[in-house]
Amino acid sequence: MQTLVQKFGGTSVENIECLQRVKNKVIEAVQNNYNVVVVLSAKAGKTSRLHDLAHSLVKQPDLSELDSLLSTGEHASVALFSLILKNAGINARSLLGWQIPIITDNTFGKAKIISIDKKTINSQLKKHTVLVTAGFQGVTKDGFITTLGRGGSDTSAVAIAAALDSCPCEIYTDVNGVYTTDPNICSSARKLDHISYEEMLEMSSMGAKVLQIRSVEFAKKYNVPIHVRSTFTNNTGTFVIKESSMMEDALVSSIAYDKDQACITLYDIPHNAATASAIFTPLADHNISVDMIIQAAIRNDSTDITFTVPKKDLEQTQTIMDKLLKDVGGKSIYTKNVSKISLIGVGMRSHTGVASKAFQALQNENITIFMISTSEIKISCLIEEKYTELAVRTLHDKFGLQKGSHT
Amino acid sequence: MQTLVQKFGGTSVENIECLQRVKNKVIEAVQNNYNVVVVLSAKAGKTSRLHDLAHSLVKQPDLSELDSLLSTGEHASVALFSLILKNAGINARSLLGWQIPIITDNTFGKAKIISIDKKTINSQLKKHTVLVTAGFQGVTKDGFITTLGRGGSDTSAVAIAAALDSCPCEIYTDVNGVYTTDPNICSSARKLDHISYEEMLEMSSMGAKVLQIRSVEFAKKYNVPIHVRSTFTNNTGTFVIKESSMMEDALVSSIAYDKDQACITLYDIPHNAATASAIFTPLADHNISVDMIIQAAIRNDSTDITFTVPKKDLEQTQTIMDKLLKDVGGKSIYTKNVSKISLIGVGMRSHTGVASKAFQALQNENITIFMISTSEIKISCLIEEKYTELAVRTLHDKFGLQKGSHT
Repeated sequence: MQTLVQKFGGTSVENIECLQRVKNKVIEAVQNNYNVVVVLSAKAGKTSRLHDLAHSLVKQPDLSELDSLLSTGEHASVALFSLILKNAGINARSLLGWQIPIITDNTFGKAKIISIDKKTINSQLKKHTVLVTAGFQGVTKDGFITTLGRGGSDTSAVAIAAALDSCPCEIYTDVNGVYTTDPNICSSARKLDHISYEEMLEMSSMGAKVLQIRSVEFAKKYNVPIHVRSTFTNNTGTFVIKESSMMEDALVSSIAYDKDQACITLYDIPHNAATASAIFTPLADHNISVDMIIQAAIRNDSTDITFTVPKKDLEQTQTIMDKLLKDVGGKSIYTKNVSKISLIGVGMRSHTGVASKAFQALQNENITIFMISTSEIKISCLIEEKYTELAVRTLHDKFGLQKGSHT
Repeated sequence: MQTLVQKFGGTSVENIECLQRVKNKVIEAVQNNYNVVVVLSAKAGKTSRLHDLAHSLVKQPDLSELDSLLSTGEHASVALFSLILKNAGINARSLLGWQIPIITDNTFGKAKIISIDKKTINSQLKKHTVLVTAGFQGVTKDGFITTLGRGGSDTSAVAIAAALDSCPCEIYTDVNGVYTTDPNICSSARKLDHISYEEMLEMSSMGAKVLQIRSVEFAKKYNVPIHVRSTFTNNTGTFVIKESSMMEDALVSSIAYDKDQACITLYDIPHNAATASAIFTPLADHNISVDMIIQAAIRNDSTDITFTVPKKDLEQTQTIMDKLLKDVGGKSIYTKNVSKISLIGVGMRSHTGVASKAFQALQNENITIFMISTSEIKISCLIEEKYTELAVRTLHDKFGLQKGSHT
């Protein structure tokens, strides 16, 4: 019998109606002759509530004890859902992280999976039709409970599928799959039937919130076929798989955007070996994550550096940079209202002209590009935030991603 | 360094103020040079809420999954309290049932402890000053989570103390200790300094809710000295210990009562070898627990049997008995408004006249005794419920248990 991993997120286990819907999905898979390993999150909001509770008690909670506390959310989910399955006559049992075990390192709060005991899972699958496993949690070799960090349940699901000889992994969500762009701002957005791991990685890091980036990395590494689909319909969703010939025609497969960007330009600053480090080390020390970085050509030992940070961090960045410029000299400009538009597609690798076509399209709409950054399969442009929706729709149309344009 | 077990119940971990109070108790013990093993319950009401949640999802929850669900209550308590201790600079860590492990049989919902790994606890006590362990929960040899049933945290605490070479075990509660009788109905009730395991056992089974009966049995078996005391004061409470010479003067050490009694008399029923079984087997089948049973002398092959059941079960008992009497013949009387008064004291064993003195005292108040049942160290009388308080006060006074009567 083939094994199937099915992962359901927090909104899928929120209440009894949701749990019944999940039950039906599992029963359907069982009727299709699958052994099912279900991976569940804590119910929506539960992890945050436990987090807040700990922080209301102590300022800086011990990370090990916090992880133990947080793990109770998924713990409750799997026990409750197993009750429901057993009540429906399904031979099921729950498995917590330590019961499998899912061994992780001891980076509490964002532990990395080291190994998953395939033997236990397989021997339990001989005794049970369905195993209900807790996402997000693992255990160290010393028996301490760990959690995998935000979106960790996606990672749990893919890692379990990887351990089970890279069996199929269904990730259930509240959307129908992965779209060419955000359907909320572009009505002609089209659901993709397939997307490569590489493209999905670029989309995940672009703020397309369908799949957690770590889980995609895991899937790519172990070649786990992911099926992103909706809990609310029976429709086929999007398969996230290894790049294959069937994709090579798509120059650009999707347009992503990220409004959470603020832009800083430092100009006429002295340029030497220590410059970049002097700027970015204090930012890292303050946990400010820098996204795009561009350094302009050097003129007479001085240079310009432009970079982006999350909007919420702009003020703190400003303070840090003002201090720096006082020491070394130079000027600065800060821009809060910017957003990043990205074109993603494996086809870019073997085709030229994607960038110029994109810039032309934006220029036609009088949208000014502040920054450009590119990777092998991605082109990102920083523009004024107010043009975000227009830019997305324009590029989506220009690269022929709309409904009906593909088979 | 000596080890001390401190157990705190659900009302002691209910909110942040309570947890702070518990923290102070633990810190005090640490300052007195103890290594402390704290045993915590789930916060008050949590276990019932989880229980109700499971029953709202399915009619007959699978007991194994239900136990896993219920265990999250204590799990959260120990993680939260460890956060607080660590934040206060105490070298603490939490230990769940499976982490110790506390091995139980697989009677889910009311598991019996088989063994406790003393080695793990001792090696953890070398690394940490305080271990915060989850009460009420254990784990089977196969790695399934179990719970110990109602009041299981008392049992956990005593069992851990027993495993640690019968070290002292403090059970914190919201009263000052064990009283000669219920202070709510008898203002002269006196806190006992000492009580023997045997007397405490009789009190526990009498409905004196200070200590769970199973934990007292455990303490008696392994000679664990228990100190029942209040979370709200620093006063010495009551030591529950092995019977010793210092107690032998007390004929009667306490008066207990139980209002949850209903009485059934079957009379003129045919008497043969099958009679008792015919009556009590169907009651056991319906999970009705019978307390007192008295069978009168046999007259001409017929007999009278009187017994008591919890008030809530009277109606069902009536139905079962009416059906039985239809088959075998005989009549019945049912009385709902009765209560049981018990005199308890190890001193009874070596003294005569306690019973007659008690009956005389009740008679002087015109309180009719319906049933009498005795053990080596207990005399119980069934009386009209409305006389409960009067009977308790009368006997309390008659046997000199009031304040100032002992040192």
